[in-house]
Amino acid sequence: MKKKNIPSVTINRLSIYHRCLEKISETEKEKELKVISSFKIAEITGINSAQIRKDLAYFGEFGKRGIGYPVIDLGKELKKILGLDKKWSVIIVGAGNLGKALINYKGFKKKGFIIKGIFDNNPSKIGKRLGHILIYNIKEIEKFIQTENISIGIIVVPADSAQEVADNMVAGGIKAILNFAPVHIVLPPEIKMHNVDLSIEFEGLTYYLS
Amino acid sequence: MKKKNIPSVTINRLSIYHRCLEKISETEKEKELKVISSFKIAEITGINSAQIRKDLAYFGEFGKRGIGYPVIDLGKELKKILGLDKKWSVIIVGAGNLGKALINYKGFKKKGFIIKGIFDNNPSKIGKRLGHILIYNIKEIEKFIQTENISIGIIVVPADSAQEVADNMVAGGIKAILNFAPVHIVLPPEIKMHNVDLSIEFEGLTYYLS
Repeated sequence: MKKKNIPSVTINRLSIYHRCLEKISETEKEKELKVISSFKIAEITGINSAQIRKDLAYFGEFGKRGIGYPVIDLGKELKKILGLDKKWSVIIVGAGNLGKALINYKGFKKKGFIIKGIFDNNPSKIGKRLGHILIYNIKEIEKFIQTENISIGIIVVPADSAQEVADNMVAGGIKAILNFAPVHIVLPPEIKMHNVDLSIEFEGLTYYLS
Repeated sequence: MKKKNIPSVTINRLSIYHRCLEKISETEKEKELKVISSFKIAEITGINSAQIRKDLAYFGEFGKRGIGYPVIDLGKELKKILGLDKKWSVIIVGAGNLGKALINYKGFKKKGFIIKGIFDNNPSKIGKRLGHILIYNIKEIEKFIQTENISIGIIVVPADSAQEVADNMVAGGIKAILNFAPVHIVLPPEIKMHNVDLSIEFEGLTYYLS
């Protein structure tokens, strides 16, 4: 299976299916549910059932026609396809409030994202620790990525430094970037980037308040 | 139009359509695009085009059959439907790193979410300011929500305090909660809540690294 043939929107939806199945496995009441139909997944996720069947069919024959998909096995398969069964080495650049908050964020480690270092350009911060994580000089990003085999970089610096930080990450050989800075970063096409916009989290709520 | 008849998954998708149209309006190259088809929106968002037409049809006749939807007008309409054309008063509970990071997050104000106060139980923090925002005693949540007419509460306290904070918010008359604490909070059915899981932001990336 060639990865480049799978549309990126399908990958985003796989992530939604994976969370849907994880939630079902965790919910006491639905624990008994051994098989799930594409219609039930559609009901929970809001994605069209034909789309769900098409997306999953890219990766093989997971279900039985007219019966459904095995909840636990499909969950495990999706985890593997999405690379969530592995551990990933991560660095954070920017030791401000958001950087500190992410260091302490329990969800990352649980999902296999291990923070190996945090970087800043402020001399009063460099050499200190946040929790167990050492703060390094921002000039060492490139070398650190190479020697520590870092896969993912998180950018939490101010907007006007974000492009330079991203360039340093790319020079070090990073494969993927998660960008919290509110700015458009230009990258080589082979680097995957995801821009985080926290204000989106509000959007589903305000409809009900109007 | 009765709001309760619209499925919540439709509302989540409206938010995706809205961002899609906003992005098109902002992109230099696509500024010329005055009309957009459901097929083009489907291509960008990954949502089935029939689903898009069905979702939008809940709210009226926006487009012309065989031609498409007017980009700017549909964007404005969605903004209105989603309540994003108004200003919303918000409080943050928890003056830790994430609370501080959210105070400084520029995206909120831009989208109309105005932070009116931040609350903590630490006596050394109460009465001080973060930026322009005063830190209040956590015991004042209920009264503050009433007197300042707060619509949305953000919870960034540790997991074991989150339920109590949510209960205080509800007692004060809050309508919607954004929860960053990694814990399941139980609320009356009329209160809208959205749980934020930052590790989800990684999920689309790791597929490409596997």
